[in-house]
Amino acid sequence: MIKQPTKYQDFHDPQARPRYTGIATFFRTAPAQDLSDADIGVVGVPFDGGVTNRTGARHGPRSVRDQSTLLRRINSATQVAPFTLARVRDLGDCWIEHPYELETALFEIESFFRTVTEAGVMPLSVGGDHAISLPILRAVADAHGPVGMIHIDAHCDTGDDYLGSRFHHGAPFRRAAEEKLIDPARVIQIGIRGTTNDPDMWGFSQRSGMRVISMDEFADLGWRAVAEEARRVAGSGPVYLTYDIDSLDPSQAPGTGTPEAGGLGVHEALRLLRSLRGLNFVGGDLVEVAPPFDIGTLTAFNGASILFEILCLLAEAFAARKGA
Amino acid sequence: MIKQPTKYQDFHDPQARPRYTGIATFFRTAPAQDLSDADIGVVGVPFDGGVTNRTGARHGPRSVRDQSTLLRRINSATQVAPFTLARVRDLGDCWIEHPYELETALFEIESFFRTVTEAGVMPLSVGGDHAISLPILRAVADAHGPVGMIHIDAHCDTGDDYLGSRFHHGAPFRRAAEEKLIDPARVIQIGIRGTTNDPDMWGFSQRSGMRVISMDEFADLGWRAVAEEARRVAGSGPVYLTYDIDSLDPSQAPGTGTPEAGGLGVHEALRLLRSLRGLNFVGGDLVEVAPPFDIGTLTAFNGASILFEILCLLAEAFAARKGA
Amino acid sequence: MIKQPTKYQDFHDPQARPRYTGIATFFRTAPAQDLSDADIGVVGVPFDGGVTNRTGARHGPRSVRDQSTLLRRINSATQVAPFTLARVRDLGDCWIEHPYELETALFEIESFFRTVTEAGVMPLSVGGDHAISLPILRAVADAHGPVGMIHIDAHCDTGDDYLGSRFHHGAPFRRAAEEKLIDPARVIQIGIRGTTNDPDMWGFSQRSGMRVISMDEFADLGWRAVAEEARRVAGSGPVYLTYDIDSLDPSQAPGTGTPEAGGLGVHEALRLLRSLRGLNFVGGDLVEVAPPFDIGTLTAFNGASILFEILCLLAEAFAARKGA
Amino acid sequence: MIKQPTKYQDFHDPQARPRYTGIATFFRTAPAQDLSDADIGVVGVPFDGGVTNRTGARHGPRSVRDQSTLLRRINSATQVAPFTLARVRDLGDCWIEHPYELETALFEIESFFRTVTEAGVMPLSVGGDHAISLPILRAVADAHGPVGMIHIDAHCDTGDDYLGSRFHHGAPFRRAAEEKLIDPARVIQIGIRGTTNDPDMWGFSQRSGMRVISMDEFADLGWRAVAEEARRVAGSGPVYLTYDIDSLDPSQAPGTGTPEAGGLGVHEALRLLRSLRGLNFVGGDLVEVAPPFDIGTLTAFNGASILFEILCLLAEAFAARKGA
Amino acid sequence: MIKQPTKYQDFHDPQARPRYTGIATFFRTAPAQDLSDADIGVVGVPFDGGVTNRTGARHGPRSVRDQSTLLRRINSATQVAPFTLARVRDLGDCWIEHPYELETALFEIESFFRTVTEAGVMPLSVGGDHAISLPILRAVADAHGPVGMIHIDAHCDTGDDYLGSRFHHGAPFRRAAEEKLIDPARVIQIGIRGTTNDPDMWGFSQRSGMRVISMDEFADLGWRAVAEEARRVAGSGPVYLTYDIDSLDPSQAPGTGTPEAGGLGVHEALRLLRSLRGLNFVGGDLVEVAPPFDIGTLTAFNGASILFEILCLLAEAFAARKGA
Amino acid sequence: MIKQPTKYQDFHDPQARPRYTGIATFFRTAPAQDLSDADIGVVGVPFDGGVTNRTGARHGPRSVRDQSTLLRRINSATQVAPFTLARVRDLGDCWIEHPYELETALFEIESFFRTVTEAGVMPLSVGGDHAISLPILRAVADAHGPVGMIHIDAHCDTGDDYLGSRFHHGAPFRRAAEEKLIDPARVIQIGIRGTTNDPDMWGFSQRSGMRVISMDEFADLGWRAVAEEARRVAGSGPVYLTYDIDSLDPSQAPGTGTPEAGGLGVHEALRLLRSLRGLNFVGGDLVEVAPPFDIGTLTAFNGASILFEILCLLAEAFAARKGA
Repeated sequence: MIKQPTKYQDFHDPQARPRYTGIATFFRTAPAQDLSDADIGVVGVPFDGGVTNRTGARHGPRSVRDQSTLLRRINSATQVAPFTLARVRDLGDCWIEHPYELETALFEIESFFRTVTEAGVMPLSVGGDHAISLPILRAVADAHGPVGMIHIDAHCDTGDDYLGSRFHHGAPFRRAAEEKLIDPARVIQIGIRGTTNDPDMWGFSQRSGMRVISMDEFADLGWRAVAEEARRVAGSGPVYLTYDIDSLDPSQAPGTGTPEAGGLGVHEALRLLRSLRGLNFVGGDLVEVAPPFDIGTLTAFNGASILFEILCLLAEAFAARKGA
Repeated sequence: MIKQPTKYQDFHDPQARPRYTGIATFFRTAPAQDLSDADIGVVGVPFDGGVTNRTGARHGPRSVRDQSTLLRRINSATQVAPFTLARVRDLGDCWIEHPYELETALFEIESFFRTVTEAGVMPLSVGGDHAISLPILRAVADAHGPVGMIHIDAHCDTGDDYLGSRFHHGAPFRRAAEEKLIDPARVIQIGIRGTTNDPDMWGFSQRSGMRVISMDEFADLGWRAVAEEARRVAGSGPVYLTYDIDSLDPSQAPGTGTPEAGGLGVHEALRLLRSLRGLNFVGGDLVEVAPPFDIGTLTAFNGASILFEILCLLAEAFAARKGA
Repeated sequence: MIKQPTKYQDFHDPQARPRYTGIATFFRTAPAQDLSDADIGVVGVPFDGGVTNRTGARHGPRSVRDQSTLLRRINSATQVAPFTLARVRDLGDCWIEHPYELETALFEIESFFRTVTEAGVMPLSVGGDHAISLPILRAVADAHGPVGMIHIDAHCDTGDDYLGSRFHHGAPFRRAAEEKLIDPARVIQIGIRGTTNDPDMWGFSQRSGMRVISMDEFADLGWRAVAEEARRVAGSGPVYLTYDIDSLDPSQAPGTGTPEAGGLGVHEALRLLRSLRGLNFVGGDLVEVAPPFDIGTLTAFNGASILFEILCLLAEAFAARKGA
Repeated sequence: MIKQPTKYQDFHDPQARPRYTGIATFFRTAPAQDLSDADIGVVGVPFDGGVTNRTGARHGPRSVRDQSTLLRRINSATQVAPFTLARVRDLGDCWIEHPYELETALFEIESFFRTVTEAGVMPLSVGGDHAISLPILRAVADAHGPVGMIHIDAHCDTGDDYLGSRFHHGAPFRRAAEEKLIDPARVIQIGIRGTTNDPDMWGFSQRSGMRVISMDEFADLGWRAVAEEARRVAGSGPVYLTYDIDSLDPSQAPGTGTPEAGGLGVHEALRLLRSLRGLNFVGGDLVEVAPPFDIGTLTAFNGASILFEILCLLAEAFAARKGA
Repeated sequence: MIKQPTKYQDFHDPQARPRYTGIATFFRTAPAQDLSDADIGVVGVPFDGGVTNRTGARHGPRSVRDQSTLLRRINSATQVAPFTLARVRDLGDCWIEHPYELETALFEIESFFRTVTEAGVMPLSVGGDHAISLPILRAVADAHGPVGMIHIDAHCDTGDDYLGSRFHHGAPFRRAAEEKLIDPARVIQIGIRGTTNDPDMWGFSQRSGMRVISMDEFADLGWRAVAEEARRVAGSGPVYLTYDIDSLDPSQAPGTGTPEAGGLGVHEALRLLRSLRGLNFVGGDLVEVAPPFDIGTLTAFNGASILFEILCLLAEAFAARKGA
Repeated sequence: MIKQPTKYQDFHDPQARPRYTGIATFFRTAPAQDLSDADIGVVGVPFDGGVTNRTGARHGPRSVRDQSTLLRRINSATQVAPFTLARVRDLGDCWIEHPYELETALFEIESFFRTVTEAGVMPLSVGGDHAISLPILRAVADAHGPVGMIHIDAHCDTGDDYLGSRFHHGAPFRRAAEEKLIDPARVIQIGIRGTTNDPDMWGFSQRSGMRVISMDEFADLGWRAVAEEARRVAGSGPVYLTYDIDSLDPSQAPGTGTPEAGGLGVHEALRLLRSLRGLNFVGGDLVEVAPPFDIGTLTAFNGASILFEILCLLAEAFAARKGA
């Protein structure tokens, strides 16, 4: 005798259903009805107006949502169960009314995230290109002061003006440092590599005091030592985690706008992230998944897997602060 | 000065936003909170347990939802605006607890749709394989008596047992006729073609009095004459519309389990559907979109476009009955 | 109680099994053990050494074999059941020991097909590029004298030397006419179009008396009139049918080496072929399916569907001759 | 004895070489060294900053260049040989220094094209999104006065402001009419279809006096009658031809940003274009090929084939004016 | 003078021909005419009725056959030549008459494999999903008693009932242990990782005494130490080797139903397998290659390469037993 | 106020423009007008007539050109700026008039490269299959005498005749040694693996004194030790570097004709190459990128990234010799 639900709502408990079913939300969480429902809000930021070469990251949130439904509730490597540690909700996508105007759009993103952080909800964002981290950090820093940052990426993204713009996806962390949203002495950048047009392309990182770990250094040190270095740099203050999917090797993340040959393996990335448990995270993002350049759904799937690790870090940090 | 929403909920009016944004629901409609919200419920039925060759239609609802976001609110060919004629809601996916057991699963589908039809909501379903039409018709016929049916497909789907099962996706309309859910004299099947293993494969259709229009006859008559014939056959009683995406030419619907060379063009299909306005539709479905076999998103996109035409037909029928 | 085969061989009746099972032979026919088993031999000719631009047709036989397993036993449009009219066998692939030497390879192909025709087996070949039709015609004409030919293609393939070779895939039918393997007065070429480098590129066709129907003329006349014209031209003598998949529109046959925009629809092609019943066919081929350029398996699937129609024509011709 | 070039330059005559060889320029023409070399300049305009949904057309010029190498020198349907009628050169890509600023970018495009038209070179452009036609028309109209226009597209592109911009890819021809670059009474728009958000979406077209032929009317009239209507509307004055690839059916042009189900077949489009011979063309463009959304290279290939037809029209018009 | 075969059969020695030619059998071996021909039988098991999320493994055997033709006769790393050590035959696909009924289908598989093992043929199977290992083990254990097992996989597959079934692809080895087909103390599971819904998901493995090596432990120990541990656990008794392709990193095996981020590299997997020489293997399988989710043919190619290593292990074990 | 170029040529400085713009040349370098312009000439060799299985490398130069535009001017790992060290030009594609005749084509390639080397230009070639290295080495050895060689590949390519040819892509370095173009004692081959048909397949390498490092040895030693070994073997004389993309793991280079499971990672390959700085390079090539088998553009992108590293090595060697 099969179970007969007695009313319509009984049919709805998305995480208990087969994974190919249901409207695709992040990790099959319930969409937020109200910000008071949520401790951690997963937010799509479908904006790629800051891209310098191959756009497409505007389609990232949809694709990561879809692939995130393949994941289950518990991290078997760490036994962390984020959905029991915190109320995790899909907040939908950030509202951007002026996608053609880079600065206005960034202001709209900032405004959306202020609403979120002011409600006491910790944001976990899915881009979109890396330009979105700047307005998110404005909202986060408003709540927490200048934050430390763990930044995993093929590029430092501390460039200067390009093609007439100060706010493209290669510059957000120069602007963030200038605006004192991040504390360069508590920033570490991991996985940096590739070609540049300017020998001093990422010089701002060094000069401002950020710790830069190139891909070659990463490979020489190994993920364990790099994780230790990251913990040392980030310290005990509030930390933001920003993960650019192009840090991965292009064979594992072909669907991105600015691939650079020879990057991190996914397993290395997962272990690096798992080694950051206990830091005082106040937000995070995953950026630069560009589905039109993906092959199959590999990039979005790896992105969703990394997003889950970040979610675990945030949920533990939330629980720790709440418990404290 | 950009608009500043004053609270979180202000950000949410999905159909007004750029089409690449937001959680992907059918046509960016609001998910139903309650069946009393809805006049027409669009339902995913992620089940392909009745497939005889290439499965994958279980992933159809997600993919059609995603592609349906490319569509807008008004049918420019007919000026029908379905979302103003009726409250259209995404009801999420039908709950199927026993996907391994074909008959039990079909009973679960029936039970879900009874909940829908008993609430007075007109169902527009997205499969899943064609086996799902049988349990849907059980719920529909319970509300309306035996219905007429317009059935567009490469196959009559009036076959008999196969591989030990009476309920596979090649047999639903034999069962529906046997169960008196449909009135064969008011059934028309359009687009039939392909190879068979049995010279009498679709003989049940003819013997039971259904009107069968092969692909060759369709091409000879043209869509206008076929539409007239469909109107004549369906008559003025309640009519169900079932659209199998494999009716389309494989160049326009490669993502399906049982392709047959040489099918309908999409433009013909759209015009055929638009010529059915005024019939007394009580439900409809789109089936057999199998994303793992799609190339790009062509099949899901064409499927979403056809789904929109069916929605327009249903919305007009709803408005007509309500106005009457 | 399930059926228990009592010995190993009982497990093998490929056409009765679900279509996704079994070693992929043409139409799931048994591989020939001996030529005396076969009335019609389906042969792969994995050679693309005559291609002038994009190679890949060497992989055609495997891909067409795979897609041909989606087909069943009876042509529902004509009710022809080829496997009951004739013993159809998969002869495997033609042996080519010197793929680097175009002329030697063609001689090897000829030698293979002589073995086939001398055994009284009617060949139905799957290329490979169009250069293979020349050596096949040598074997066929040896058995039947100069044959009439129905040739469906985007190109006349009656060009002259190119890049130092007389035998590339744009020239077989000039050579065949010169070698008196085909009778130009009984040859019709259908679907011709595209750009050329030489204003007299296909002049040999006209001058030798072949009937050339361009794509524009095909569209103006329609498939019915073209079929009648083909029957008139081919007459009552022995006829060879050669089908180049690039005759189809590139949206239906992207996987080919020399696509030309704006070609036949598959449904038109199928109906054209079905209208050739009763001609005295003595062999046929399908060429230029190039899987590396296919998208999904669309080209191979359409190719297999066309191959089945040719098989039906050959099987009826075989049965007619046998019955006579 | 093989030919031995005596010096390096001897190796260079791109159109005589196998089609898979050489740097990919439009139709394997020589890159322009100087504008005085050229009668017709084929120009890439890699800009998609006006797109409202799926970007990617910035990659269109590269992909169309690549596929255009499959074409040869002579149009076999019309026997037109454009490269002997006019000096056709690849002018490279339009320089856009401010891709983030829509209006500035459009001004840069205009400025580039003024350089071209002022040198007496007829522009044939490859977008890029449809927003680029506005600045091109500014340059063209400056040379020729308000022009007639044959516009083949799924959308009228005469919309108004959207997402805060007056210049997105859905509005260029409203702006062009307002700026008196085109003469609405001599404009015809062919292939219009799809859904809209606004019932008066394309009302400007009708009110300003443009002739709008919907996809349904196109199918009812047929390409011959539509071509006649286009000739009547365009008249004897200077005419611009703008071809949006999304006019084609999505099965033939999946790689575009705003697909609409049920469009023109490629063969119909080619014949429509060939029927416009003799009009007084002064420029043309092909827009909205978006390679990241292409499947295989089908869209770019069909785009290149259409571009060749437009080139033939322009070359004949050039020769006619020169001969006059 | 080219070689002229004197009769039809001379054309057939598949492994000596270019690799793109011939009907695709496993490693281009001859199809078995009779079980007495074979020492090792490679069998396709096209069944995916036990899948919990993304089906498609039913198409695995065809795709692995196709890619296996790229391989040659000798393992250059070990110099093992399996085809000279044993008579290896392609036994075709296991007959499954009731694919809709999971338990019946498993019984049919068992019955097929009993026929094989009772004929003294060592089975090397290609799935299909992992549920097939249970019925194969029933046949194998009947011949050899409870076997040791080396199990490489992202999942332990020792789960309990799910969605109403005891026999889905996440449970075979719990059932096998319960049925005493395998000896848990001689079982090692390697590569385990990913998310779970149940904190005790794989607890049965530990409690029953299996040795579980998570992906993290694998990475810490390295393949050499893991191979040694596997040899220690498996001991000198009869051993079965089961390889789930999802043990590989998704970048190397995207075509599978249940990918988990961060898995084994193919080179590691090959070296691990090569280090198991000398164990007393009595059978093996490769499962979960799901072609509809593959990108290109990467998964099937890697699967075929792993299958070849397993074949080498089995052939050496066969030769050792025969020589003993 | 935007910059207004005053004449047409001002628009052209390809490396300064956004990377998605412009005609795709190697690294967006200017096409050579004259060999006297160039110090290093990057040459496409679109020939795959020596392939034994899957062709397609003839399309390699176009695809690598396209992907090379994603790269910038400076190697951030080494700070080498090749375009300031040497005048790097795209020489276009090697002229091959007789692609059907393997030996004649190789002679044509040799003749082209003699023109290049005799002009004092250092060649960096992009194949094409590996057979092209033989004629290139003929030209190079003529200028420099027998050269040392660093050869990274899955195969030694020192096989003997196959399918009647001495010059296929598995034999060039046996021929080169026989012709004394390379000095076997100064040759190292790295990454060798896979299956063979002949146990002595690569025996010539060992017997002639080449140093062969199998993939297993490479993994055991690590790239640093291998690089040292390569420097030791190559010594101080002139060295040629030949890179076969199939040395990479198929997950990173699926687009190649003869993949072998379990190869180098891209990061390892890049670091190996970077460790070869200071050797006396006189030329190099990248071969076997076969775009029809690529997935997305991964292989071509990784190929372009490797090509850039080789370019850096060549540019430094050029500068060193010039400075000396």
